[in-house]
Amino acid sequence: MTLTGKLFIGAADIAASEGTMNALNPATNREIEPGFALGGRAEVDLAVRLAEQAFDGYSHTTLAERAAFLGRIADNLDAVRTELAERAAQETGLPAVQLEAEATKAATQFRQFAEVVRKGRFLQATIDPAQPERQPRPRMDHRMQKIALGPVAIFGASNFPIAYSVAGGDTASALAAGCTVVLKAHNAHPGASEIMARVIRKAVQDSGLHQGVFSMVRGAGNTVGEALVDHPLIKAVTFTGSEGGGMALYRRAQLRLEPIPVFTEMTSVNPTFILPQALSLRGAEIGDGFAERMLVNVGQACLKPAILLGIEGPGFEAMRESLSARIASAPARPMLTPGIHSAYLQGLDRQQASGARRTAEGAAPSQDLDGRSALLEIDGARFLADPRLAEEVFGPAALLVKVRDAEELIAIAMAFRGQLSASMHLENADTSLAQRLLPILERRTGRIVVNAFAHPQEVSYASIHGGPFPATSDSRFTSVGMSAIDRFLRPVSYQGFPDTLLPMALREANPLGVPRLVDGGVVTRRSPAARNDQETIRWRGDGAPADQRAFARASKRPNFQGASR
Amino acid sequence: MTLTGKLFIGAADIAASEGTMNALNPATNREIEPGFALGGRAEVDLAVRLAEQAFDGYSHTTLAERAAFLGRIADNLDAVRTELAERAAQETGLPAVQLEAEATKAATQFRQFAEVVRKGRFLQATIDPAQPERQPRPRMDHRMQKIALGPVAIFGASNFPIAYSVAGGDTASALAAGCTVVLKAHNAHPGASEIMARVIRKAVQDSGLHQGVFSMVRGAGNTVGEALVDHPLIKAVTFTGSEGGGMALYRRAQLRLEPIPVFTEMTSVNPTFILPQALSLRGAEIGDGFAERMLVNVGQACLKPAILLGIEGPGFEAMRESLSARIASAPARPMLTPGIHSAYLQGLDRQQASGARRTAEGAAPSQDLDGRSALLEIDGARFLADPRLAEEVFGPAALLVKVRDAEELIAIAMAFRGQLSASMHLENADTSLAQRLLPILERRTGRIVVNAFAHPQEVSYASIHGGPFPATSDSRFTSVGMSAIDRFLRPVSYQGFPDTLLPMALREANPLGVPRLVDGGVVTRRSPAARNDQETIRWRGDGAPADQRAFARASKRPNFQGASR
Repeated sequence: MTLTGKLFIGAADIAASEGTMNALNPATNREIEPGFALGGRAEVDLAVRLAEQAFDGYSHTTLAERAAFLGRIADNLDAVRTELAERAAQETGLPAVQLEAEATKAATQFRQFAEVVRKGRFLQATIDPAQPERQPRPRMDHRMQKIALGPVAIFGASNFPIAYSVAGGDTASALAAGCTVVLKAHNAHPGASEIMARVIRKAVQDSGLHQGVFSMVRGAGNTVGEALVDHPLIKAVTFTGSEGGGMALYRRAQLRLEPIPVFTEMTSVNPTFILPQALSLRGAEIGDGFAERMLVNVGQACLKPAILLGIEGPGFEAMRESLSARIASAPARPMLTPGIHSAYLQGLDRQQASGARRTAEGAAPSQDLDGRSALLEIDGARFLADPRLAEEVFGPAALLVKVRDAEELIAIAMAFRGQLSASMHLENADTSLAQRLLPILERRTGRIVVNAFAHPQEVSYASIHGGPFPATSDSRFTSVGMSAIDRFLRPVSYQGFPDTLLPMALREANPLGVPRLVDGGVVTRRSPAARNDQETIRWRGDGAPADQRAFARASKRPNFQGASR
Repeated sequence: MTLTGKLFIGAADIAASEGTMNALNPATNREIEPGFALGGRAEVDLAVRLAEQAFDGYSHTTLAERAAFLGRIADNLDAVRTELAERAAQETGLPAVQLEAEATKAATQFRQFAEVVRKGRFLQATIDPAQPERQPRPRMDHRMQKIALGPVAIFGASNFPIAYSVAGGDTASALAAGCTVVLKAHNAHPGASEIMARVIRKAVQDSGLHQGVFSMVRGAGNTVGEALVDHPLIKAVTFTGSEGGGMALYRRAQLRLEPIPVFTEMTSVNPTFILPQALSLRGAEIGDGFAERMLVNVGQACLKPAILLGIEGPGFEAMRESLSARIASAPARPMLTPGIHSAYLQGLDRQQASGARRTAEGAAPSQDLDGRSALLEIDGARFLADPRLAEEVFGPAALLVKVRDAEELIAIAMAFRGQLSASMHLENADTSLAQRLLPILERRTGRIVVNAFAHPQEVSYASIHGGPFPATSDSRFTSVGMSAIDRFLRPVSYQGFPDTLLPMALREANPLGVPRLVDGGVVTRRSPAARNDQETIRWRGDGAPADQRAFARASKRPNFQGASR
């Protein structure tokens, strides 16, 4: 595939209006060809207007059509896997084999969301049947489903240049919800971004969808990002990146005439609590496992375990030694961008200025942007005294905290800001301390891991990649996992509708066979008859056919009278 | 019950620190005894700290305990129904009989949320079992449930002084979620507020809960409201009121160091579209029904149908005449507050300045704060030309718009800002026009009603009282109905947990019997055995016992490999 370097706005390749840029190969610190077009407010406006034009049609595609579209993106990603991984490797310094796995994962996410769409549970179809006999006032038939918010702006992440970039989880979940997408490509991997945009565009075309379903823009500085967030037709924003960048976008969006939801995934140190019995039995193994996970992706992962907390006592030295040894033997590898590289060095300096000692270092850098692995250490009292030590250093460094006792460990747990995850390593004898930690961690994290490390993040139904501020800007949602789709949906209630006007998911015969909540307690299925569209008998999940007498009984419960506004 | 006029902070009656105020009887425009204490930042801080102290315990109450607590509030509300309605009538000018029904409704809402709690579906328990054989990497056991956000601030509404005030739907849904509540009483009905606060406090005490579960504060001006929104321990805010007030709170909360969710329910004109065949067959009946609903509560309802749109032709005059006649015969009744009364007069003036003609008026006022009912009229072209005509006039007035044709009706529908609701009156022959209107209304409303009026709002599972801005500040949620609880919840994932450390809803035996999503497709139930806590067999919703082979099969699906971050 020849890279054109253009902006991908709907079906059109749009040339630069604000100059061009080149990708940088972080392994060599040299630019790579070709040049890539930079746009501005005009290109954003064009893309967003197309997304708006496409929205009504796209958001009303059938579940089968939308799932097929997502499946085509997955297939197209598979077809370019090698080429995509090779270009991404040049642009990020990450190993091509790892990026091939990331491409596989990206395709998997589209297939997973295709399945979510086909199942239709995300619609949360809900039916409160009419109660004509209710006193003092009859209840009308009420039905509810979720619909897509509108065109959304997605900011590609830099650190996972495939699975959380152009064809990443945000795009997959937004498209699954029925939203149209204007994606801001990250300037750190423009070539990989173009390959992915091409893949999505082809799926749009092959699916016969409006060209505005997906566009990709790119710009210098903040102009394009700000134009996206400001655009009145944009109805939601997702962002993965730094706390500074995320909060600037978040606050800007809240100052719009019409504020919109902004889900930013920003910063987390993913504290790892080693409880005493686990430490004494498995100290060396834990130190080794921690080091392995913290060094993945040159430490440039939102789920990097960055802070390791152990109570001094049996096993602590063994843990420290295995951790140190592994870090000391780690090769220096290129970091993603010059900005990330210099922020990493500053972060290390900041921790040392706060009193942390650098006790182990990996191999020395051989190239400009190589990140040298590092272990820093401090004791619990000094850690507690300086909140800056609990802030993220993005890169291959970790902080080992020697904690005095269980009480100090609890105090440290309570001092953390919001996190994506926390881990506890424990044995049976640690249960009572774990039970004390658990409610503290629940209030501060989106995911709690036992006897493993937070990274990697599973992508499944129970996955949560979210958490209280500043891990994200809205702890009620997740950016990874099947419920990431909920960020892009809102409920609409339909009252007293004739069957033919209702959305398919809410029609009496349940022709889509989606799960439905009926009268608050029962999930219905498609009746065998409805498969032939011949009958409209509704079957309840408990096997009993719908029973008007139940409605009549409910209508006589005194508790539920007068329940209208 | 003797009114003390104090602030209700936990178990303590707190005296005024910022002077006192008296309630006003709008029917007489005279103050009523006793005086009510006003507090400031110190009292807010005290209440919020108590709410924080109470949170861990309250949010971990069992579902049964929490449901019993909500039930006690309902019973206590029933016990004071007459007294509460009488005091609220004095403070609002609304009929006592209507307020008794509102008290019944408030109690009903607590009972409904008790049922939501008992059922446990709001936890959205989700289980992705371990897949030890999955390639290339085994999947660990992942489980997810929703937990409460933390202490929340609730601003009582003025227009429904019982069911959406101190003991209203916001309080019920927040307490149901497991949040502790600091309520800001509306100064328009301090006596009714105290009676409700007392009822909740008694239920807290009788349930053996921490005193900080509920507090009620009150203040002059904006100090108390701002202190609540600013307080770092407050994790969410709900507000019902004007767009100006709601957006001031919303934007203030987004400027906090840690922004928090703010759900404001603000403004809606609930447009009512009369389609041609319905108009020709039922014009007079529709005009009559519209007038009845718009005059409820002296037009002071968020769901008041305020704008009536009919295409000129058969039935229009009949509709106009029945509407005019009913408005002309409407008595003038006291409005809630002097501020609302004067804003109503200004709103009428604004509409006339925009070209609307006042074509019918109700009986003349006999008291200072009486609101005189009014019908205004305009044609579709002029309505479209001046967006101010589409803004809410809170009170007993409506705007009848004579629309030229279907195209103009569509154009008008597209021009509306976000609404809580819209209604269509239609007959079979109107179906194709309804199908054109429907996607336009879906994008602009939270609820669409056919052949009825938006007001009243049912409180049930499929109820949505929300909608795009400016109807609310977050269209993804509702403030009325059972899913109002979702505003106060966030997900937490538990990975690799031993059964004994898991929250009850996620334990293998499902001892609470809550619905659970297992592997994305199956809702489990409590097994008969688990009721006796003797066995841990898991039953699937489809009647088949859990089958490890299914997990093994899933682990071999190539589509789902590598799906981790």
